[in-house]
Amino acid sequence: MNVLIVYAHPEPTSFNAAMKNVAVETLSGLGHEVTVSDLYATGWNAVAGPADMTGPPSDGDRFSLAREQTAAMETGTIAPDIAAEQAKLGAADLLILQFPIWWFGMPAIMKGWADRVFARGFAYTTGRKYDTGMFRGKRAIVAATTGTSADTYAPDGIDGDILAVLWPVHNGLLRYTGFDVLPPCVAYMPGRESPEVRTTQLSTWADRLRTLDSTEPLFFHPASDYGPNERLRPGIPARSAVQRNV
Amino acid sequence: MNVLIVYAHPEPTSFNAAMKNVAVETLSGLGHEVTVSDLYATGWNAVAGPADMTGPPSDGDRFSLAREQTAAMETGTIAPDIAAEQAKLGAADLLILQFPIWWFGMPAIMKGWADRVFARGFAYTTGRKYDTGMFRGKRAIVAATTGTSADTYAPDGIDGDILAVLWPVHNGLLRYTGFDVLPPCVAYMPGRESPEVRTTQLSTWADRLRTLDSTEPLFFHPASDYGPNERLRPGIPARSAVQRNV
Repeated sequence: MNVLIVYAHPEPTSFNAAMKNVAVETLSGLGHEVTVSDLYATGWNAVAGPADMTGPPSDGDRFSLAREQTAAMETGTIAPDIAAEQAKLGAADLLILQFPIWWFGMPAIMKGWADRVFARGFAYTTGRKYDTGMFRGKRAIVAATTGTSADTYAPDGIDGDILAVLWPVHNGLLRYTGFDVLPPCVAYMPGRESPEVRTTQLSTWADRLRTLDSTEPLFFHPASDYGPNERLRPGIPARSAVQRNV
Repeated sequence: MNVLIVYAHPEPTSFNAAMKNVAVETLSGLGHEVTVSDLYATGWNAVAGPADMTGPPSDGDRFSLAREQTAAMETGTIAPDIAAEQAKLGAADLLILQFPIWWFGMPAIMKGWADRVFARGFAYTTGRKYDTGMFRGKRAIVAATTGTSADTYAPDGIDGDILAVLWPVHNGLLRYTGFDVLPPCVAYMPGRESPEVRTTQLSTWADRLRTLDSTEPLFFHPASDYGPNERLRPGIPARSAVQRNV
């Protein structure tokens, strides 16, 4: 299996780094090919814009990110840093996103990896989303840390269900583009836990990585559950993390 | 009233720019003081890290963003670009976040505005969150565009309820820091609508801005609804966009 770990933390001795290292060791030990994109270390440019395309603009009067991404993918003129990540992602059977939850989401540097690498024409296009997504057959898993407790991210917790907080990543980025999304591995507030708890968090993560093949992906409604307006058909009970019947 | 509009779009003739311009005109016309932070035009640095602090590190061996932000806020050594935004935010009675929804969230450049400007010691600290948040008394509103229809963002839509998609911004960033969060103004797929629909979308936005004082904020449970573990007390029915009783 080819594995791509996209990792976003500025500190090489952070708990996120430790989780990344555990993943590299565990998956390499199992014979998998592991590639790491270390966004902070490589100074990843987080900001999508006209410089993402190296050719003349498709529309020189008005910049549309989706339109210019599409044209650049067609003509092979997407910027080299993006093309390199797209090649890694194209080769990956498993994508791991390793990040600290900052303001209830990915750090900007990783959001910018998504904005730029998941370009139209590469990660989605007309008629290719969700069940027909471009990355069908690939799996993905979020590995994240928090600053607060698991209780705060319970379904009735003050911060909201962790699966609701991660919905934009799970459904929006990953399922939208066709991935099977495995349940996240969230290490709750490792910075406030004892060394013993941190060690357990790391071994839990290693165990998750050793048992990927027996792990059921998160549930997302199949395309057949939706009507032509892309809302659940009458009689289909909402079963995902955030959807509800109305 | 002092208003800060934080605006993130690379194209000055975009619909997001038009919404920003409508807000400037409408609010200025009502006699309010309006400031715009145009993140693309000013080349905002999206990536939080050690360069956000101009003084010697509090811990030179190991970089913790929260720890160094706290120290820099105490010693007045937060980077000048961040300090300038914090001054604008501190003076604002109303914050407007104007952005296109990219991958179910803010563009990276705006997420990086949040990561860097909402520093610990400025936007939150021990004991100061939600009802006791630092920005109590201020209001905020998300003004956003989408690439797909309102149906896809219905509670039973394939992309998930717009209030679930925006939960990380509404609850995570804004309510967490004490804002009263007004219902978002979302212009659904203006790029695929007729000029007439776009005109209506802009006048709807202007109407929203003229009626802010009679607009009920989104519901978030008050602190008193939560027990010491920060989960809803028994008998309190979950009423927010994503929380549910278990």
